[in-house]
Amino acid sequence: MASVVELLSLTNPVFKSYVFWTGVLVLKMLFMSVLTGMQRFKTKTFANPEDLLSPKLKVKFDDPNVERVRRAHRNDLENIVPFLIVGLLYTLTNPSAFLAINLFRAVGIARIVHTLVYAVVVIPQPARALSFFVAAGATVYMAFQIMVTAAF
Amino acid sequence: MASVVELLSLTNPVFKSYVFWTGVLVLKMLFMSVLTGMQRFKTKTFANPEDLLSPKLKVKFDDPNVERVRRAHRNDLENIVPFLIVGLLYTLTNPSAFLAINLFRAVGIARIVHTLVYAVVVIPQPARALSFFVAAGATVYMAFQIMVTAAF
Amino acid sequence: MASVVELLSLTNPVFKSYVFWTGVLVLKMLFMSVLTGMQRFKTKTFANPEDLLSPKLKVKFDDPNVERVRRAHRNDLENIVPFLIVGLLYTLTNPSAFLAINLFRAVGIARIVHTLVYAVVVIPQPARALSFFVAAGATVYMAFQIMVTAAF
Repeated sequence: MASVVELLSLTNPVFKSYVFWTGVLVLKMLFMSVLTGMQRFKTKTFANPEDLLSPKLKVKFDDPNVERVRRAHRNDLENIVPFLIVGLLYTLTNPSAFLAINLFRAVGIARIVHTLVYAVVVIPQPARALSFFVAAGATVYMAFQIMVTAAF
Repeated sequence: MASVVELLSLTNPVFKSYVFWTGVLVLKMLFMSVLTGMQRFKTKTFANPEDLLSPKLKVKFDDPNVERVRRAHRNDLENIVPFLIVGLLYTLTNPSAFLAINLFRAVGIARIVHTLVYAVVVIPQPARALSFFVAAGATVYMAFQIMVTAAF
Repeated sequence: MASVVELLSLTNPVFKSYVFWTGVLVLKMLFMSVLTGMQRFKTKTFANPEDLLSPKLKVKFDDPNVERVRRAHRNDLENIVPFLIVGLLYTLTNPSAFLAINLFRAVGIARIVHTLVYAVVVIPQPARALSFFVAAGATVYMAFQIMVTAAF
């Protein structure tokens, strides 16, 4: 299993796992917009004049509930997006299936937990820190692996 | 047309369409930096002391025109980037060419409209909401498809 | 060398270079979270109540050192992420190896310099502007190339 023909086929369990978790994590990320919208309507916090539901409302940028969801969303962009790109290239380096699939699982589950404890039900630290570091650690490992594989 | 050799070739009309719209949307996204820069110079709103054009100016973070373009740019990151990754994997699931090409077109056109009505000429709602939901809906559909395809 | 089998193999020097710089730039981007964390602890600036280290502290959003690193991080999302996607598709268009490898190098080095002069040791302009435009210029060129290649 050394050619891209096998590596990028859904018969390759590593690629299959990568595609599955990419689907899950992209759906999770896009759901952050729904969560933001829900908080905006609930707290009547809108960032644009054309979004105001009533002429009595004014634009507002400092609602803590809205800003919390926005911080969680931005954290997704900072961490999930790099994983999605690195995970694809890591799959192309023909890694051990056991290791690769568990790395993808770790990132997937950790980032779902991160969202839950950050933006859905706030759980005291170190819940968020731990979920952040599991996903970041796995992504750093994969990024380092592809860099080293390509360097020599 | 089941192997990656055909799927990721420019002779595959689905991949061709994906590459075209990726080029268009990345150029559009990078243009947001130009728009932000134009608004910064026009309103003399700079975020860093080393950017100030004159010693009389101070850093400023609340100009509504600058912040509007920055919100549109962030919205691109939240929506275009996930599409770019999901679109590539969706292409690899060998979808119906007619459906796939029209999904890519829908995302591409909707995100251009989103920028126009948000950051170029402000159009009252629901213009922005509609363009947002067309692109998000198509991306959710593709993400769901790749997740399900990889799950079974 | 026209098939994806050769193009996405590490025996293709263009793909090898792309994978190497992707690893480097993703590690660099993830390091921005470390830099942000360091500035947060140093200046005791935390954005969430559950992150406060002592009951005397309050959430704070306007520390200039924290915000500077966060702006640099966001600028990475706006510029490195589009490059990572466009670079992969550009590799698939079978470009001149000399040109492609030097474009990847230019983006990689320019974005490292951008971080250094923006968020590590602040260097007066036009240091940051120059590093920004080198990377953005190379990415625009590649995005334009893939768009045109796919359009005809």
